[in-house]
Amino acid sequence: MPDTTSERAAAVKAALRTQSIELPSWAFGNSGTRFKVFAQPGVPRTPEEKIEDAAQVHRYTGIAPSVALHIPWDEVDDYAALAAHAASAGVRIGTINANVFQDDDYRLGSVTNPDPRVRRKAVDHLLECVDVMDATGSRDLKLWFADGTNYPGQDDIAARQDRLADALDEVYARLAPHQRMVLEYKLFEPAFYTTDVPDWGTAYAHCLRLGERAKVVVDTGHHAPGTNIEFIVAFLLRAGKLGAFDFNSRFYADDDLMAGAADPFQLFRIMHEVVRGGAFPEGPGPDGSPGAGVCFMLDQCHNIEPKIPGQIRSVLNVQEATAKALLVDAAALAKAQAAGDVLGANSVLMDAYNTDVRPLLAELRAEDGLDPDPMAAYARSGYGERIAAERVGGAQAGWGA
Amino acid sequence: MPDTTSERAAAVKAALRTQSIELPSWAFGNSGTRFKVFAQPGVPRTPEEKIEDAAQVHRYTGIAPSVALHIPWDEVDDYAALAAHAASAGVRIGTINANVFQDDDYRLGSVTNPDPRVRRKAVDHLLECVDVMDATGSRDLKLWFADGTNYPGQDDIAARQDRLADALDEVYARLAPHQRMVLEYKLFEPAFYTTDVPDWGTAYAHCLRLGERAKVVVDTGHHAPGTNIEFIVAFLLRAGKLGAFDFNSRFYADDDLMAGAADPFQLFRIMHEVVRGGAFPEGPGPDGSPGAGVCFMLDQCHNIEPKIPGQIRSVLNVQEATAKALLVDAAALAKAQAAGDVLGANSVLMDAYNTDVRPLLAELRAEDGLDPDPMAAYARSGYGERIAAERVGGAQAGWGA
Amino acid sequence: MPDTTSERAAAVKAALRTQSIELPSWAFGNSGTRFKVFAQPGVPRTPEEKIEDAAQVHRYTGIAPSVALHIPWDEVDDYAALAAHAASAGVRIGTINANVFQDDDYRLGSVTNPDPRVRRKAVDHLLECVDVMDATGSRDLKLWFADGTNYPGQDDIAARQDRLADALDEVYARLAPHQRMVLEYKLFEPAFYTTDVPDWGTAYAHCLRLGERAKVVVDTGHHAPGTNIEFIVAFLLRAGKLGAFDFNSRFYADDDLMAGAADPFQLFRIMHEVVRGGAFPEGPGPDGSPGAGVCFMLDQCHNIEPKIPGQIRSVLNVQEATAKALLVDAAALAKAQAAGDVLGANSVLMDAYNTDVRPLLAELRAEDGLDPDPMAAYARSGYGERIAAERVGGAQAGWGA
Amino acid sequence: MPDTTSERAAAVKAALRTQSIELPSWAFGNSGTRFKVFAQPGVPRTPEEKIEDAAQVHRYTGIAPSVALHIPWDEVDDYAALAAHAASAGVRIGTINANVFQDDDYRLGSVTNPDPRVRRKAVDHLLECVDVMDATGSRDLKLWFADGTNYPGQDDIAARQDRLADALDEVYARLAPHQRMVLEYKLFEPAFYTTDVPDWGTAYAHCLRLGERAKVVVDTGHHAPGTNIEFIVAFLLRAGKLGAFDFNSRFYADDDLMAGAADPFQLFRIMHEVVRGGAFPEGPGPDGSPGAGVCFMLDQCHNIEPKIPGQIRSVLNVQEATAKALLVDAAALAKAQAAGDVLGANSVLMDAYNTDVRPLLAELRAEDGLDPDPMAAYARSGYGERIAAERVGGAQAGWGA
Repeated sequence: MPDTTSERAAAVKAALRTQSIELPSWAFGNSGTRFKVFAQPGVPRTPEEKIEDAAQVHRYTGIAPSVALHIPWDEVDDYAALAAHAASAGVRIGTINANVFQDDDYRLGSVTNPDPRVRRKAVDHLLECVDVMDATGSRDLKLWFADGTNYPGQDDIAARQDRLADALDEVYARLAPHQRMVLEYKLFEPAFYTTDVPDWGTAYAHCLRLGERAKVVVDTGHHAPGTNIEFIVAFLLRAGKLGAFDFNSRFYADDDLMAGAADPFQLFRIMHEVVRGGAFPEGPGPDGSPGAGVCFMLDQCHNIEPKIPGQIRSVLNVQEATAKALLVDAAALAKAQAAGDVLGANSVLMDAYNTDVRPLLAELRAEDGLDPDPMAAYARSGYGERIAAERVGGAQAGWGA
Repeated sequence: MPDTTSERAAAVKAALRTQSIELPSWAFGNSGTRFKVFAQPGVPRTPEEKIEDAAQVHRYTGIAPSVALHIPWDEVDDYAALAAHAASAGVRIGTINANVFQDDDYRLGSVTNPDPRVRRKAVDHLLECVDVMDATGSRDLKLWFADGTNYPGQDDIAARQDRLADALDEVYARLAPHQRMVLEYKLFEPAFYTTDVPDWGTAYAHCLRLGERAKVVVDTGHHAPGTNIEFIVAFLLRAGKLGAFDFNSRFYADDDLMAGAADPFQLFRIMHEVVRGGAFPEGPGPDGSPGAGVCFMLDQCHNIEPKIPGQIRSVLNVQEATAKALLVDAAALAKAQAAGDVLGANSVLMDAYNTDVRPLLAELRAEDGLDPDPMAAYARSGYGERIAAERVGGAQAGWGA
Repeated sequence: MPDTTSERAAAVKAALRTQSIELPSWAFGNSGTRFKVFAQPGVPRTPEEKIEDAAQVHRYTGIAPSVALHIPWDEVDDYAALAAHAASAGVRIGTINANVFQDDDYRLGSVTNPDPRVRRKAVDHLLECVDVMDATGSRDLKLWFADGTNYPGQDDIAARQDRLADALDEVYARLAPHQRMVLEYKLFEPAFYTTDVPDWGTAYAHCLRLGERAKVVVDTGHHAPGTNIEFIVAFLLRAGKLGAFDFNSRFYADDDLMAGAADPFQLFRIMHEVVRGGAFPEGPGPDGSPGAGVCFMLDQCHNIEPKIPGQIRSVLNVQEATAKALLVDAAALAKAQAAGDVLGANSVLMDAYNTDVRPLLAELRAEDGLDPDPMAAYARSGYGERIAAERVGGAQAGWGA
Repeated sequence: MPDTTSERAAAVKAALRTQSIELPSWAFGNSGTRFKVFAQPGVPRTPEEKIEDAAQVHRYTGIAPSVALHIPWDEVDDYAALAAHAASAGVRIGTINANVFQDDDYRLGSVTNPDPRVRRKAVDHLLECVDVMDATGSRDLKLWFADGTNYPGQDDIAARQDRLADALDEVYARLAPHQRMVLEYKLFEPAFYTTDVPDWGTAYAHCLRLGERAKVVVDTGHHAPGTNIEFIVAFLLRAGKLGAFDFNSRFYADDDLMAGAADPFQLFRIMHEVVRGGAFPEGPGPDGSPGAGVCFMLDQCHNIEPKIPGQIRSVLNVQEATAKALLVDAAALAKAQAAGDVLGANSVLMDAYNTDVRPLLAELRAEDGLDPDPMAAYARSGYGERIAAERVGGAQAGWGA
């Protein structure tokens, strides 16, 4: 079993101190299924309140220093002021997520809509998101398209690819040299027959055409049953095309459960490939660039559990998986693999996975001045009760502008 | 190829004249995904208007004479008056669908909720639905429970079965002798870890315990990938436990697309088992009862297509699949099956499936005084334009009370 | 985190000392896919050699005291002599597995074949298996039927159920009062359209009709994607109808990988339901019977890894999952569940899962005179090298008679 | 409904006269599952006999003029003589399929094996297959790799991609200018954790790097549940990277049932994209090249049905799907799509699908001097009985060299 008390533990801790996980502002708002959105007390009414809640997660975990925005859900008049607000709360604004799926105009798609007027409107929104990035200092524009069709024959699959390519080209051209476009794929939902970016291959092909600063986003809940996600991660890292993660977990479809809740072993295997592929801890890239620059984000829905604790738990789950991945004895693994020792190689990996890393993480937090038990510390803080009492009136944030 | 012009055609037509497909009132209201509900012009504001729209479907197809209600979506003060309204529109009220998933109290379940107060409230609603049945003269109470859990450990699986059994017992005891309970299963959504009635086996086991008038509902979109639905249909018919269908189609999960749109061959295979199992055309049951009494219902969401034409198309799709199933040469099929002639038996089935039954159905309609092309006839009628113009103001019906 | 050093650890160890996992004789023979069976050196040529290999697994783990036979793969002239051979090796013969899928006569099925002659032959084989049970003193007859169809229309689904029921009735009637029939279900393979016992509902319905001594077998690899296996386990235990497990793991279909290798968290959740449902450690049944009597068996294929170490690893994986399940703080879990504390309840379960139980198990083994590290101890024993050297000539055992 | 009697029918027939479907030599040999290979009377013993059987399929369908070989299953001393034998039987040799999965050396992979000696051996075999192509005049080398791993940690995912890239590079460099490499992907089986070419994205990325004459093979049974295959076809055609089809059908995994048997509507949708994408009837490519050059091949296992009739039925199923695809009113479809008329566009597609094209195809055959009913004509020919009587002795061909 991995030695967790010595030099190795120190090395693992050093690496873990470089970790940062981005939180989605919308995880603090209400969410649900098409059947029901259960409102929760204390839910933020404004982007500012979402950022304050996110800051709580960072306060107790120490590794969640940035918040992704969703435009227009987080639309404000003054993004510089919002960024300042974040800074004062101890966090910063991260990725800008565009939203082109909630206007009645987008019934048949946004950038792939058969109607050029709607396409223009959608692309204009994407361009505005780059304006927001300029104001917030964000590096990444994240694009997820709900575009697709519900019925065979409804639209022309190849023509929609042409329209998609045109839109991406225009937006990519608008980016500043330090900005990136990260493109997300998803098998289905809300489209139920075709989706215009359904899999990593499609996202990869478009990113390849676009250029260096276009990368693929892997949302862990966006695959067909049986898809080996860590293979995709390894492949994209090898190709220099992994841009970001949207972490969450699922038993069925895009369930958006807390990361690591449904299949903690899968999360570990993914983080093992991340470590193996040099994306964490981040070293210099093969081209001398500052590194792979993968953004590790959560994207989840706390439909029935409280939201801030739900985010804390998810961050901890990712951290635990990362710690285990760092514990993998790479030399022993490589040796067993080279020897064709199936059980031996598997055993090296499982040794790390089976290790209880919670004591090491508690130690790390204590050393860094954090409470060893972030869940308990947050619960004791009374913050949850306070916002439930104070946030009365106004419209709770949810999946609407 | 089946002879579609002669005696056989006459027999098929005679059978088809006995078909009736029940429409869901909620198919005429707005629906969508968790991402967006796209509102459509002309959508009904009241149960009365939903029934009027449903009556249009019956008017042009001739085989959709009843409308299922969803309580409380279709709650009215006077159900007898609603029934009279339906009668005046040329249709009648069918199954009563209970809804125990849209109150904030149901966040952790309804009849299986760990809190006895919530369970009581849920059961009381189910009992009230039986009151509605008394008023509308409905035969069937349809129960679908969104109950389940999202996270391992969240609740006790077996204890939830106990609570479910208690609730079903109490409701079953309340039914009048001519009333039935039909119990629906669903793999997942909105619950993402366990669902309390996830599969036909669970529904069957409860129905078996309850008694003769408890039957299983097969919603064609509620299964795991790869599930052979026609097997379940055949099994339940053999066991005398098939109560109803919720027809719709899907490529992925519970997509609720138009029946027959995603896999018309599957719909045909299901209807073949229905015919083979004696459920259509309905003969006397083995116990001399009036027959299997299977309710053939649609349960769909027309998220992006117009709703009344969407229902007409779905009814026609079911009718076409039924006509093909009736064309199967049962004697030739049995002979090839008995001989172990794999390709021969398959060929008998495919002969029927590959037949274009649209001319026969057009003929049938013409003989019965209907327009041979219901889609075109409805389009010409101007009804869609009229309701779009007239239904201004008020709140459009949707998946809310 | 669970306290693993004190009273609780002692109680867990006491429970673990009652565990016994049955090994399949065929796991020691060659296996593979339709593409290739890779032969391994040292593979047994006879049932006796398979039993000797199985005894090695018991020798190092201490919890694998019985071996299941597969007839005719393990056909011998004198079963009493084989039982004596097992006893002398330190193990005993367990479940008898019938095989009605490898004769050319079974191309279109065995007990559900359209040809009555073939059905007779198949049932006769099943009856002979009961004769073997009489000779070996086995309690359980395990029935898995490859029966099904490949093409729509090929045979009549309901008629095949009738034939299946007839065969099961005849075999059940032949059992002695202390013998049981355990019926396995499987979604698909080798049949690719319908399978005659495709799911737990079908097996359950037949077992219910047959009587008390007919129970369902859950093979963890035999489900559709997304199926919640622990739900099925909980349901069957609540109904008194869980007979046995076939443990293995899978990422895709019936991959037959080592138990716990693909999804160790799922194995833990299953064992949690086993503990919760009173099936382990086994207490008296609700009717005062000696208990649930669930048989915990492995059923795997070590296609590329060495077979004896593969079995040891699998036994250890099940033992680790069991230890974790025993560590669940049932009182705390029940309290959190009753309170509707989603994250709290999940956290109680995860606390147990995240515990590294390997030190406790090493301790247990040391206390019981076993090597703390069974994999290493076996590797050091030289047994693998010895059989590779000695077992030269003869036909290696595989999936053939 | 499409007008099938007039000019359109003539155009459809003209297109269908250009169709050619390649048959796999191995479909005429025995096949089965890992549970059992059921031998059939009359199965070929030699490559020559396989080709003779394939020629029967062409004789009755008129559209199956070429036979793909599998090396070493079809290894002969003199390939030129084999090609001459084919010509004398009225067919020709098509694609050469390499096989690097049936040697004991390939237990842990072929071109991605951790052992360089095994990789060398595998690449050498692939190079020999190009020698065969030189002798047979084949255009396409088809590569499917069973390579992958069964357990997490077993081998390094990215390193295996490096080895794969090296092997492909070496083989691609060996091709003559008129030869192509077509690369097949498959989700799983026989590897059960990772597969080295698991999806179209991986195959596409490698082909892109290799160059113009490397193209992707779509085997319709090689996808995760829910994958939209026609999307992939449309995408690859748009990118000029679709090389070939392996047609078959499936309800579950890689079932290898007859094409069109499990989901005839899917086959139609695929052929619709083929027609839409300009791959059939084949026009000049965008670069003035002779066209897309897609090879339409069957790849199936007739495990329980007779093989020659199984192939004839499959060819007819593909032909029927093609005829329906050709009947789609492209102008009406484009108009409805552009108008955002969801139901209208779907209806144009379904009109073609619902048409019974068998009369048109019977007519086509009669005009071309073929029997209108190929299945019946073959059955009447007595060929099946003759080979069953004559092919006595020798080893029946199967999935072995």
